[in-house]
Amino acid sequence: MPFTMGPNSYGKSGVRLVRVGRESARHELRDLAVHTALSGDLDATHYTGDNTGVLPTDTQKNTVYAFARDGIGAIEAFAERLARHFVDATPSITTARVRIEEHAWTRIGDHSFTRGDGGELRTTEAVYDGRAARTASGVRDLLLLNTTDSEFHGFLADEYTTLAETRDRILATAVTATWDYQAEDPDTAFWDHAFTRARGALLAAFADTYSLSLQQTLHAVGERILKAVPEITEVRLSLPNRHHYLFDLERFGLDNPGVVFQAGDLPYGLIEGTVRREAA
Amino acid sequence: MPFTMGPNSYGKSGVRLVRVGRESARHELRDLAVHTALSGDLDATHYTGDNTGVLPTDTQKNTVYAFARDGIGAIEAFAERLARHFVDATPSITTARVRIEEHAWTRIGDHSFTRGDGGELRTTEAVYDGRAARTASGVRDLLLLNTTDSEFHGFLADEYTTLAETRDRILATAVTATWDYQAEDPDTAFWDHAFTRARGALLAAFADTYSLSLQQTLHAVGERILKAVPEITEVRLSLPNRHHYLFDLERFGLDNPGVVFQAGDLPYGLIEGTVRREAA
Amino acid sequence: MPFTMGPNSYGKSGVRLVRVGRESARHELRDLAVHTALSGDLDATHYTGDNTGVLPTDTQKNTVYAFARDGIGAIEAFAERLARHFVDATPSITTARVRIEEHAWTRIGDHSFTRGDGGELRTTEAVYDGRAARTASGVRDLLLLNTTDSEFHGFLADEYTTLAETRDRILATAVTATWDYQAEDPDTAFWDHAFTRARGALLAAFADTYSLSLQQTLHAVGERILKAVPEITEVRLSLPNRHHYLFDLERFGLDNPGVVFQAGDLPYGLIEGTVRREAA
Amino acid sequence: MPFTMGPNSYGKSGVRLVRVGRESARHELRDLAVHTALSGDLDATHYTGDNTGVLPTDTQKNTVYAFARDGIGAIEAFAERLARHFVDATPSITTARVRIEEHAWTRIGDHSFTRGDGGELRTTEAVYDGRAARTASGVRDLLLLNTTDSEFHGFLADEYTTLAETRDRILATAVTATWDYQAEDPDTAFWDHAFTRARGALLAAFADTYSLSLQQTLHAVGERILKAVPEITEVRLSLPNRHHYLFDLERFGLDNPGVVFQAGDLPYGLIEGTVRREAA
Repeated sequence: MPFTMGPNSYGKSGVRLVRVGRESARHELRDLAVHTALSGDLDATHYTGDNTGVLPTDTQKNTVYAFARDGIGAIEAFAERLARHFVDATPSITTARVRIEEHAWTRIGDHSFTRGDGGELRTTEAVYDGRAARTASGVRDLLLLNTTDSEFHGFLADEYTTLAETRDRILATAVTATWDYQAEDPDTAFWDHAFTRARGALLAAFADTYSLSLQQTLHAVGERILKAVPEITEVRLSLPNRHHYLFDLERFGLDNPGVVFQAGDLPYGLIEGTVRREAA
Repeated sequence: MPFTMGPNSYGKSGVRLVRVGRESARHELRDLAVHTALSGDLDATHYTGDNTGVLPTDTQKNTVYAFARDGIGAIEAFAERLARHFVDATPSITTARVRIEEHAWTRIGDHSFTRGDGGELRTTEAVYDGRAARTASGVRDLLLLNTTDSEFHGFLADEYTTLAETRDRILATAVTATWDYQAEDPDTAFWDHAFTRARGALLAAFADTYSLSLQQTLHAVGERILKAVPEITEVRLSLPNRHHYLFDLERFGLDNPGVVFQAGDLPYGLIEGTVRREAA
Repeated sequence: MPFTMGPNSYGKSGVRLVRVGRESARHELRDLAVHTALSGDLDATHYTGDNTGVLPTDTQKNTVYAFARDGIGAIEAFAERLARHFVDATPSITTARVRIEEHAWTRIGDHSFTRGDGGELRTTEAVYDGRAARTASGVRDLLLLNTTDSEFHGFLADEYTTLAETRDRILATAVTATWDYQAEDPDTAFWDHAFTRARGALLAAFADTYSLSLQQTLHAVGERILKAVPEITEVRLSLPNRHHYLFDLERFGLDNPGVVFQAGDLPYGLIEGTVRREAA
Repeated sequence: MPFTMGPNSYGKSGVRLVRVGRESARHELRDLAVHTALSGDLDATHYTGDNTGVLPTDTQKNTVYAFARDGIGAIEAFAERLARHFVDATPSITTARVRIEEHAWTRIGDHSFTRGDGGELRTTEAVYDGRAARTASGVRDLLLLNTTDSEFHGFLADEYTTLAETRDRILATAVTATWDYQAEDPDTAFWDHAFTRARGALLAAFADTYSLSLQQTLHAVGERILKAVPEITEVRLSLPNRHHYLFDLERFGLDNPGVVFQAGDLPYGLIEGTVRREAA
């Protein structure tokens, strides 16, 4: 076997699960996409097609639906429950990674809902390796925009620099944030409370920060989340800079005091970074 | 010229306009995509490439931004203002069609916003032909879901029919609705008020209607909108039936009393129809 | 019933059908998306939820798969066969509209294929009303680009015009074309031959035409298709103008003689038009 | 500063570059998307908004276009050239990562092209840290399908397993492959030749392999690429299993001997793995 397998995994992606809670006439609605990825002693299927140790991805899908029968709880709890099951119940599987994205729906009646989340997703990933479970959670595609309190100047200029300095610009982004938790015996109440506080801190930091660069905003957001939730150890942020260009109206005899903008699409800036509690 | 031009138009699509209102410290934010389409005496450019009568699509884009300088108002008013301009100011242009989609942003601070519209768009189209302007408005991708009060049975069965009858199912859709207005001297206050009432009627009808078919829901929604806004003459609805399949848990020794569903993607049902005020 | 139903239809969209022909060791592969829409005596389901006349969309889906058992032929033939069935076999249905899009796959082995169609789709729509079937076919998202032989000047200028005239530009588009057929007893051989000739004429016209406006190119393309296929009576074209902007390199001490371009995304021009055989 | 920055980078994404080679009447066309990401001494902008060391993402974009003036060569060579420049010319920048995706166009005339790549992209990423450049290349969204020679059975079954074993199924995937190179003084001729051989090996392995699991196909593809190009040290593959379900036609009195399939969408299996040369 001159060519060997390195890291590998397999699983089911895009398992679309909707759960209706009918405990009262006021129904509850949950809307999830679940993605599983299992690793372990899987050399045989790669080298010879011997599937003895392969729990089919179809089975993984079935498991997701079966486990939802008696309630989901926080997506963090559900992800960990699934990850533990795949490892604990399957001898050939040593590590399970379960990612979940949740859409929020807004109630408009006892059993009626509209989706009012702007495309924003609550996310989590649980990894279990037979000993410990690690959980990272966050948000994806949370759209935010400040109409002012954003400058950008004093930057490095080389022979290819043509950008004008600005003392007032629109700052807009679609936040993807992921944070690591270190918590003792977390339960659904913990996860939901921590998520609410972290998301609230994110929004507040974005709205409050007078920004001299999107990097500064990134750090401020990460810092505020770490302050708000002591159990979070690290925040990773991916902030596309959705450029808005002041449209030149002088050509038509009009001024444009920060009023009319052309929203850009491609290309966009992309600012990514990690904010951590300082090591002791 | 053995091959002649039939209906044709040209314009600019995807003009992304963001406007900031700075009248007070509490900024206003508008976020639009504008699409123009002009028709008229345009044989020359088609037959010989003589562009004498062609107002460039780039100019149409510039006009959108220039017209936004002093305010937009309701998108219906803005669309009509643009459509009238293109026809009235350009001898070769006899008809202008201006479509606008608007994203709603939710305030989280004096100058900070998040987009909380679930992807839903408010839409309008104004057509002006030199004599009269016609306006059609609506919503696109308004996601709605009822967890119960929906049945489907008693349908026609042929040799290819295998669908089981159901007395309780999830009813989910992404509404595209378009309604025609007939109004005397409408202004922004009229348009915004009418839109709010029509959208509210749509939601209420969806939530209230005990549904025996998505067609019945469609009619109920159209009827409610017509009742709510006397100036609306006709409602056109496009309702994809986003199937949710009860997942079979019996195979695992579990029951599933309307709790766990697999959300389907493709294929989907598509129910489309028009509801009108009865002719006198 | 003060609010009455206007035009309406219902059907199944996104029926994804793959068919393998195993007549020889050299397998054949077909890859289709089918969309059905039925109309007829459907007042009852709209007004009262009485589904007596409703052939479920699920049944329509089943029918598509069942009809594919013994071969598909040209998508035009398959669409018409389905449309005729829905009307002829269902008393409540008076009109059926069947749209099909086909992906082309390229053979890389006796039973192996890769998709090399650039996203381009072959399309058709058959409408049958119990008396006659009408067929319109075409292509969607056929990407074409000329690096030269395209000018744009001599256009109308108003107070909002800032566009510079150009004697050499990139002309790029994603063609959606639809043409109507009028043919006696067409069969699969006819449809496939006509499609091949029409598509070839489209490409040749785009490549050959020295263009003074995209409108001129549109007319040339339509004309060439009409000349190539006598059974085509009318061609409808939708040509987005995918702008490519010459990047200003002078700021860096470099010239740019039509070499380096920034591909634009939004907004884009949209040129639409119909080319017809001249009425006698 | 109780909260410190961990790993971070910033750059421009989605720089859409089209280059026309006019050396002869037979023009050359290149179509790229470039993404840059720079890292270095950037604490100041994160902590205080001091942008002294920040080369704007707009400058990075300008650099991409300027560097394309005199030719691109293989995307691997272009990516490395850009990465070296950003580090060597900017004191604050210690590492540059440049990713490029290339669309292939097919010639239909001296200056006319159509895009016939099925959405497939050729990809590369160069990372330069001031000492050495590392290059990884590959393909994305290469759609492949085998109509037979694929089985799946003998797998692990637990209480949630319902999947039937199969001795003949469709195997379809959209390949994302990335391979690492270790080469002495590579030039454009090397890169293009290596890419052609690697892609050819990928297609051949997919078409030739009698598959007992998609994992086995994954290993076979990786092995064949490593054999074809000695300078490749490792291949990483991501293979979504695009399920095709044999449609049950027995309900309609028809057999279905591997002929009519329903193409699935969500969920899909996802098989990922690395194949390496065995360490000496």
